[in-house]
Amino acid sequence: MSALLKTDETLDDLLIGDLRLIQKKKGFRFTLDAVLLAHFATVKAEDKVVDLGCGTGIIPLLLQTRHPELQISGLEIQAEIAEMAQRSVQLNGLEETIQIIEGDFRKTEEFLPSGVFNLVTANPPYWEVGSGRVSKCMGQALARHEIACTLEDIVGAARRLLNYQGRLALIYPVDNLVELFLLLRTSNLEPRRLRLLHSFPEDKARLALVEARRGAPVKLQIEAPLFVYEKSGQYSAEISAWYGKEGLGSEA
Amino acid sequence: MSALLKTDETLDDLLIGDLRLIQKKKGFRFTLDAVLLAHFATVKAEDKVVDLGCGTGIIPLLLQTRHPELQISGLEIQAEIAEMAQRSVQLNGLEETIQIIEGDFRKTEEFLPSGVFNLVTANPPYWEVGSGRVSKCMGQALARHEIACTLEDIVGAARRLLNYQGRLALIYPVDNLVELFLLLRTSNLEPRRLRLLHSFPEDKARLALVEARRGAPVKLQIEAPLFVYEKSGQYSAEISAWYGKEGLGSEA
Repeated sequence: MSALLKTDETLDDLLIGDLRLIQKKKGFRFTLDAVLLAHFATVKAEDKVVDLGCGTGIIPLLLQTRHPELQISGLEIQAEIAEMAQRSVQLNGLEETIQIIEGDFRKTEEFLPSGVFNLVTANPPYWEVGSGRVSKCMGQALARHEIACTLEDIVGAARRLLNYQGRLALIYPVDNLVELFLLLRTSNLEPRRLRLLHSFPEDKARLALVEARRGAPVKLQIEAPLFVYEKSGQYSAEISAWYGKEGLGSEA
Repeated sequence: MSALLKTDETLDDLLIGDLRLIQKKKGFRFTLDAVLLAHFATVKAEDKVVDLGCGTGIIPLLLQTRHPELQISGLEIQAEIAEMAQRSVQLNGLEETIQIIEGDFRKTEEFLPSGVFNLVTANPPYWEVGSGRVSKCMGQALARHEIACTLEDIVGAARRLLNYQGRLALIYPVDNLVELFLLLRTSNLEPRRLRLLHSFPEDKARLALVEARRGAPVKLQIEAPLFVYEKSGQYSAEISAWYGKEGLGSEA
């Protein structure tokens, strides 16, 4: 196995279905956000799926545990990270299910067909409103220059890739939820499911899990809130049920 | 007191500050929605407030308990109900604080100044999406014909009445939240606070409490979820704290 691993990488046990994941020691490591999104998205057997900005490949790896018949493409703009994700796919023997593509999701028409996918997922980088700092999932080189993908780019890519009734599932800070809803509506991707993530039950929501469906009628469902921690500081029962007591992404 | 009451009315103890409220035995009776909205709205000393479609007057009566210096106008289109609300104001000796106006809030310019109010509240009638039935707060005669107030009318009235940085607080079914956000944004009333109402913690949200502020920058805060009941079927601690153990609107 060690030949698969570079010196600046770790090999982590995902604690789900014997999956293992290669991550950077610093920088590209997955967060709870990706895990939440992989659990939230509506997934149907034989769905064709695209994960925009797949990073380590965490979302494709977790999604395939929900339906082994899925066909998943993970797009990643940074060559080094795409190559690392590809090694994780090989390590788990999932080359038949998951295809990692080095590419810019603002130009999907160059390497993926339009209008044929059932599900697009995205855990995009974002700025915390008012903080002025990139808070997650950006390589430092990218972050120094500009946010390489914006909400408009995500929604635009989904609009191209999805078939009629296809679904976009993403996780995003609540600060910009109004903007996101507007963009989705004007792209004929109707917001249909919303789930809000609170650290503790008495806290404000930090993140929104949103699923929109192309061409769907107006009717938003807001699901039960998702709490990360119980009052004691332990993971909530729902999140513990996914992972047992060892927590998320502990190093192997 | 009995001279204040008609035969088809009841006199109810609100269990807050000795307030009492006249209601119809059938039809115009307040619901938990109004109580939730009166607690949710941001209220500042000496605010000038308009409650659109005030019905029994429940929202003005509850709001004034939060700041005795408020000046509140309640608009009610149905003469009989406006007159009943006026008697409740008199019964509680609040004529200096609350003014009930019989009028159509689609035409506020006929009886209220524009651009001078700090807060507009609205607990509008609505159709449950898909049910085909008017679910609350409509007199039967009105309901038989048409929904007299629409979301557009509410937002339009708020847009006229509010001063710069003035706030609109309303409660509305979550099904149409995307539509509401779009309307607010295009009316320069930026959604700033959202709180979701779930019957039980594991249930979908039914209603959204929304506060928008005229001319405010983009930044939505989503507050901790509000649960009506605990698992036991008792009111949650938060709601019980408002009312003690006797529940809401029990008859005196």
